[in-house]
Amino acid sequence: MIIVIGGGPAGRIGAMRLAEAGLEVQLIEKQKIGGQCLHNRCMAICALNDVARLLEYARIQKDLGILDSVPSISYPAIMRRMREIQEKLSTALDAETRKTGVDIVYGAEGRLSGDRVYIDGEEVRADAVLAATGSRAAVPDIPGVDLHGVYTYQTLPSMDDLPGRMVIIGGGVVAAEFAHIFRAFGSEVKIVVRSRLLRGLDEKVRSAAMRDLSGIGILEETAVTGIEGGARVRAVRLAGGEEIEADAVLLATGLVPRSESLQGVQKSPDGAIAVDKHMRTSVEGVYAAGDVIGPPYLTPAARREGVVAAENIIGRSAAIDYTGIPQAMTLRYDYAITAAGDGDGCAILSAPAPAGPGSFWDVAGGWTGLAQVRVNPGSGRLVGAAAAVPGASIFLSYLGHLMKRGITVDDFDDIVEVHPSTDGVYGLARYAAGMLRDKRE
Amino acid sequence: MIIVIGGGPAGRIGAMRLAEAGLEVQLIEKQKIGGQCLHNRCMAICALNDVARLLEYARIQKDLGILDSVPSISYPAIMRRMREIQEKLSTALDAETRKTGVDIVYGAEGRLSGDRVYIDGEEVRADAVLAATGSRAAVPDIPGVDLHGVYTYQTLPSMDDLPGRMVIIGGGVVAAEFAHIFRAFGSEVKIVVRSRLLRGLDEKVRSAAMRDLSGIGILEETAVTGIEGGARVRAVRLAGGEEIEADAVLLATGLVPRSESLQGVQKSPDGAIAVDKHMRTSVEGVYAAGDVIGPPYLTPAARREGVVAAENIIGRSAAIDYTGIPQAMTLRYDYAITAAGDGDGCAILSAPAPAGPGSFWDVAGGWTGLAQVRVNPGSGRLVGAAAAVPGASIFLSYLGHLMKRGITVDDFDDIVEVHPSTDGVYGLARYAAGMLRDKRE
Repeated sequence: MIIVIGGGPAGRIGAMRLAEAGLEVQLIEKQKIGGQCLHNRCMAICALNDVARLLEYARIQKDLGILDSVPSISYPAIMRRMREIQEKLSTALDAETRKTGVDIVYGAEGRLSGDRVYIDGEEVRADAVLAATGSRAAVPDIPGVDLHGVYTYQTLPSMDDLPGRMVIIGGGVVAAEFAHIFRAFGSEVKIVVRSRLLRGLDEKVRSAAMRDLSGIGILEETAVTGIEGGARVRAVRLAGGEEIEADAVLLATGLVPRSESLQGVQKSPDGAIAVDKHMRTSVEGVYAAGDVIGPPYLTPAARREGVVAAENIIGRSAAIDYTGIPQAMTLRYDYAITAAGDGDGCAILSAPAPAGPGSFWDVAGGWTGLAQVRVNPGSGRLVGAAAAVPGASIFLSYLGHLMKRGITVDDFDDIVEVHPSTDGVYGLARYAAGMLRDKRE
Repeated sequence: MIIVIGGGPAGRIGAMRLAEAGLEVQLIEKQKIGGQCLHNRCMAICALNDVARLLEYARIQKDLGILDSVPSISYPAIMRRMREIQEKLSTALDAETRKTGVDIVYGAEGRLSGDRVYIDGEEVRADAVLAATGSRAAVPDIPGVDLHGVYTYQTLPSMDDLPGRMVIIGGGVVAAEFAHIFRAFGSEVKIVVRSRLLRGLDEKVRSAAMRDLSGIGILEETAVTGIEGGARVRAVRLAGGEEIEADAVLLATGLVPRSESLQGVQKSPDGAIAVDKHMRTSVEGVYAAGDVIGPPYLTPAARREGVVAAENIIGRSAAIDYTGIPQAMTLRYDYAITAAGDGDGCAILSAPAPAGPGSFWDVAGGWTGLAQVRVNPGSGRLVGAAAAVPGASIFLSYLGHLMKRGITVDDFDDIVEVHPSTDGVYGLARYAAGMLRDKRE
C-alpha cells in the first residue's frame, strides 16, 4: 500500500501514476481534490482573468466605435459561478483519479512522524509515502492582518462584493495578476511593495507588464507597518506614517510550505521538506512533491515532481529537471519566459510582437506585445525566449522543450507557423539566423 | 538585378531574403504591400473574428449572470477601423521591406514572357525573376454572380452594412469562417454546399467545428443554379427550383492562381505555375512562389516558398517541405491539425480539452474543445495532432516541427506545460505513453 497525502497536482498525478503501474494507492485529502491550484490559484485567476480580458478588449473596441457599450459585471455572480465550475472540475478530477484505481479518502488528515504514517491519528502500514500537502499564503507579521476585509488568495473567495478601493500588499506575480483583474473589474487598485514590482523580471518584459498595469497606483520601496480599521478594514498604514484608504486589502506576500503535519523529515527553516532530485526525503520510503518542497510553486512543476516520486516508488529511476520550465504571468496578455542552456555572452533581441488573434484591435493603440530571444552567437543556439502576447504561455512550453533539445536559430527555417499568429519569437529567431549568416559570410 | 513581381507574403519575404544577401532587388507591386493576406484574407478574418469571439464569450457570460449585457456592434465602424489598421500594418511592412534594401515600385504591372520581363510594358534586364502574383477568388459560372450584393472575400470590404440574411456558397474553411463571423455579428446565415461542409476534416474535429457553427443553416448536397435579383440580390436559387432569400451572398468557392500576366512558363490547367521543390519554373532563371503555384494557399507556406526561391537564386540550395504544416481554421475556437510521418496503423486518441484561458466559462455549457493525437504504436512516434481550443494554432506549429524531428509520446514527460492551458495534446500524449508502457510490461 502506498499512501499519498494531499490531492493537489503533485499528489493526485503521483497517485495516478502509481495506480496505473498496478500499485495499491490510498490518497488522503482533507478537503477537495484539485488543491489550491483548482480552488484558489491557477484556475481562479483564469476564471477572473477571462472576464477581465473581455472587459478590457471591449473597452478598446468601444473606444474605436466598434462596440456601443462595455458590459457591467456582477461580482457575486462571478464568484458563485466560478465555484460551481470548480465543483464540476473537482468532480471530473475525482472520477479521472478513481478510474486509474486510486482509493480517495476525503475529510481525513494524514500525518507523518519519520517513517510512521497516521490517518486521523490511526497508524497505518505503508510501503511508501508521498507527502504532497502543498502550501499556504504567507501572512506578514504586522498588526491588523486579521481585520474583516483583509484577504489572502485563499480567503479571497469569501469577499462578497467588489471593493471600491483595494490595496494589494506584495510585488510578485500574484500581486500583479490580482491587481490587473480588480482594476479591470472597476476597483481603484493600489499596490504597495517593499522593493520593486515584478523585480527580477527582464526589463523589457517588465515594461510590457507595466503597460498592462497602467491605471493602478504603484508604491514601490514602501513598507507597510499595519492595517487599520474597526469592524472592518479602513486603511493601510505605511512606514512614513501615511495612510492609504482601503475597502479591502489583499496580502500577496508569498507562500509557505504546509508541512506542520509532516514530522521527522529534514526541512529547511521555512518548513520546506528537503528532497533530492528523485523526490526522496531524509527518511527512507518517504517522498515529497509539490509546493511542500518549496519553490517554484508551479502546478506543472508539482505534477512533474509527483510523477518523478511515483516513478522512483515504482522502481523506475527518474529525476526532476527544471530546465526550460516557463515562468508565466496572466495580465491583459500572457507573459511567459523560458531559458535553457548557458546565457553568458548571448545576444538579446527584442521586438514588438505581430498582431494576431486577441490583439488585432490593439494595433490602433500601437501596442501588440513583445517577443524576445537570447541567442548564443557562437553556436546559434536559442538559450532563452520570452513573449508578452495573447497565447504566450501555450507555445513557450514547447519552445522550452526545443531549447532543451538544443534548437538553433537556423532550425527555425523549418518551423512553419500559422498565420496570423501573435508569436513573434519565430520571426526574431529567423532574423537572428540571418544576422549570424551574414556575419559568417 | 532581381525582379520580384508581387508584394504579398511570398514576394515580400523572398525579396527581403534576397536583399539581405546583398543582391539588388526590385519589387513590383500593383496595389498595396502585404497581399490578399493582409488586405482581404488572414488579417481581415482575424479582425472580424476578434469581435465575433468577444461577442460570443460575452453571450456565454451574460447567460451565466456575470455580465449584464452584450454590446452591439457597428459594422461600418468595424470595416472603417479595420481598413485604418490594415493601412498602418501596410506602412509597417513597407518600412520593414525597404530597410533590407528592397526597392519597391508601386502601381506598376510586371509581366513575364518566357525569360523576358516587362514593367508597365517596358522590357527590363533581370538576372532572375521571382513571380509571386498570388490568387483571386474563384467565381462560379452561374447566372447572377455580378448582381449588387454578391461578394467574394475580395469584394466583401465594399459591403456597407451588416446584411439581415446572408447566404454563403461554398463548403471550405473560408465559408465556415465567414459564416461564424456573420452569425456572431447577428446576421441570419445559411451555407449552401454542393457536397459536405468541411469535408476531408477528421470527423471528431469536424464535429467540434459544427458546434461552433450551430445556429447557422447548412444545406449540404445542394447545388446552386443561379442568383436572383434586380437592382440588388434577392435570393439564391437551388437545383430543385427552391429559392433562399438573401440580402447578401458570399461566394466562397475557392481560389484560382493569378497567372495571366505570366506567359511562356509551364502551367497546370487551372493556371498554377509549375515549379519543382526549389521553386524553379520551366524557364531558367524564373522562379515562382505563393498562391500563384496553387494550393495549399497558406501564408506561412507562401513565405517559406519565397525564402526557398530566394535561397536558390542566391545560390544556396534549399527545398520546400510541406511536412508538419498545420492546417488551421478560426471559429469560436482555433482549429489546427498537423501530421508528419506515416499515419498507417496509428492509434487515434481524442479527448475533451482542458479548460483554460478563453474557455473557462465554457465549462458551464460542458464544452471546452478537443485534443487529438495519432501515435505509431510500434515506435511511439507522434505522427499527428489536432486541437480545437483557444490558442490551438499557436502551439500546433511547434508540435508539427517536433513531429518532423521524430518526437515520441515518451518525450512528453520532458515537456513542462504552463498551467492552466487549453492544450490537451500533451496530456493525451502522456496518456498514450502510459498505455504503451503498460503494453510493453
